[in-house]
Amino acid sequence: MPRIAVDAMGGDCGPEVVIEGALEAAADGIDVVLYGGGIDARGLDLVETREVIAMDEKPADAVRAKPESSLVAANRAVGDGEADAIVSAGNTGAMLAAGLLHIRRLPGVMRPAIAVVIPARYGASVLIDAGANADARPEHLLQFAHMGAVFAAEVLERPRPVVRLLSIGEEPEKGNQLTLEAHELLAEDPALDFQGNTEARQLLRFAGDVIVCDGFTGNVALKLLEGTIAEVLDALREEVASTTRGKLGGLLIRHAARGMRARLDPETYGGAYLLGLRGLSVIAHGNSSAKAIANAVRLAARGVEHGVVDRLAHRVPDRVASARPAS
Amino acid sequence: MPRIAVDAMGGDCGPEVVIEGALEAAADGIDVVLYGGGIDARGLDLVETREVIAMDEKPADAVRAKPESSLVAANRAVGDGEADAIVSAGNTGAMLAAGLLHIRRLPGVMRPAIAVVIPARYGASVLIDAGANADARPEHLLQFAHMGAVFAAEVLERPRPVVRLLSIGEEPEKGNQLTLEAHELLAEDPALDFQGNTEARQLLRFAGDVIVCDGFTGNVALKLLEGTIAEVLDALREEVASTTRGKLGGLLIRHAARGMRARLDPETYGGAYLLGLRGLSVIAHGNSSAKAIANAVRLAARGVEHGVVDRLAHRVPDRVASARPAS
Repeated sequence: MPRIAVDAMGGDCGPEVVIEGALEAAADGIDVVLYGGGIDARGLDLVETREVIAMDEKPADAVRAKPESSLVAANRAVGDGEADAIVSAGNTGAMLAAGLLHIRRLPGVMRPAIAVVIPARYGASVLIDAGANADARPEHLLQFAHMGAVFAAEVLERPRPVVRLLSIGEEPEKGNQLTLEAHELLAEDPALDFQGNTEARQLLRFAGDVIVCDGFTGNVALKLLEGTIAEVLDALREEVASTTRGKLGGLLIRHAARGMRARLDPETYGGAYLLGLRGLSVIAHGNSSAKAIANAVRLAARGVEHGVVDRLAHRVPDRVASARPAS
Repeated sequence: MPRIAVDAMGGDCGPEVVIEGALEAAADGIDVVLYGGGIDARGLDLVETREVIAMDEKPADAVRAKPESSLVAANRAVGDGEADAIVSAGNTGAMLAAGLLHIRRLPGVMRPAIAVVIPARYGASVLIDAGANADARPEHLLQFAHMGAVFAAEVLERPRPVVRLLSIGEEPEKGNQLTLEAHELLAEDPALDFQGNTEARQLLRFAGDVIVCDGFTGNVALKLLEGTIAEVLDALREEVASTTRGKLGGLLIRHAARGMRARLDPETYGGAYLLGLRGLSVIAHGNSSAKAIANAVRLAARGVEHGVVDRLAHRVPDRVASARPAS
């Protein structure tokens, strides 16, 4: 049974919410160990920690200054083999910095990247990088493509995943300097089923099994997607509630609307994988509810059971051997 | 009455659709002149042109190679004062290149930028740059902020527009190299009411009067916004139509759903302003319907009536005097 280290102090909603979510996942039989201080672990295993990294601390400084924080200690537990994976809804940059320091990169990986599942209408897509690397080079994007392809093959069960590059036009000559150079590297690589650029317009429809971009673009896209879905559904609810006729109609479509909302709700996935490390790291939303935390822990457990890291370790280094800077 | 040059050959839907839209705008009393060849102008003024720039041609090459194309001739008409504004649903890059060549930049403007109105829930926002500059420097973003602020003040009637920088976290230290440097320039400028970063999550809610970003990020955001709105509404319609109960509910909420769809429909705005030139240029969607073309022509006429270019000419140069490279 996978053992998952949960950072109880991470996130905007307080340790009670994280612990509630951890309990829910533990009820499925997942072996959870909490990292935190001054909390009621409610029967779960607890490693007492003395410090907390806040959401707005500078990541590298915070990780250096607070080695005994819940976030750093839980990362160290994965690095030391005491836990199989870490889940935190805390500071994303600190998760990246602590992961690099204590779990360390897989051989050959230049930059770990965040892979998140997009619940597109005609099949889930992996968006990578969703925020680990605000600035990236073309050769990083090539590695992200390989990591995303392994993830899509192993976890989403797409034997030969289609890779697309997120850009501002489908034609190869449309894009910025980064995507133009990355496009060439991707197109040259025989180990990838690269089918060219895709536009953001297609993202929620289905743009490909793996959608590659730098972490700034990916993070903007992910947040825009989440915010827009929520806003459209809220605005519709408001319009509908403004007339009696609409209210009755709203009652009748409630079941259908709930089904769609559940599919599109970021809580359904709960978290994103930070790929490229020697252990599994799952980053949950800062504002995660208990349900979202529970799903993030389940996502971590599923990754451990599928041996995602082992499979990356065996496949990424070979595949990224072709990754050479364009200049 | 403003005279608007319409590129009849631009767009994915063929000249008949563009002419239909131009006729609709002309019925409002707008003086429209078509640029195209081998078409039935249906009573509108027509300047015969011999060439067409395709959507996938390389912009700079196409503008150089086809000086007698409808797109280039219509831009030249604005540069020569024969028309007050141009509207085209054609190649965006070619519109930019032809505008730079024939309408020319306003003094002091380093890079023209595309300003598009986002129909946010609690008030319209200007997103700038929505695609003219796939690669941009921090000082360009500062100029975009000033151009967007003038646009918001003059056209959206916000006397002291709030400016936000699109980034991946609200804290000043979150972002990529470009936004970190741009943030400093924006924060230092006393002529702007800069209120810091905003996340894409807020875009459709209301993030500020002016949202500043580079053209790659802005174009990804705009297309994602449009695609996600359409996809959520389509998916809901499909869910609703799958049961009898849902179908009845769907009929009852149809009016409310239509109101929201109309607000969010990109056709409602029809096009985007290319700001920073000595004349007005409106870029319509490639797949514009007749209605979208008509609204783009109306947007151009409104810009002429509001004297947008004159106001930019009087205000931008003073304001951008503070724009200095960060390095």
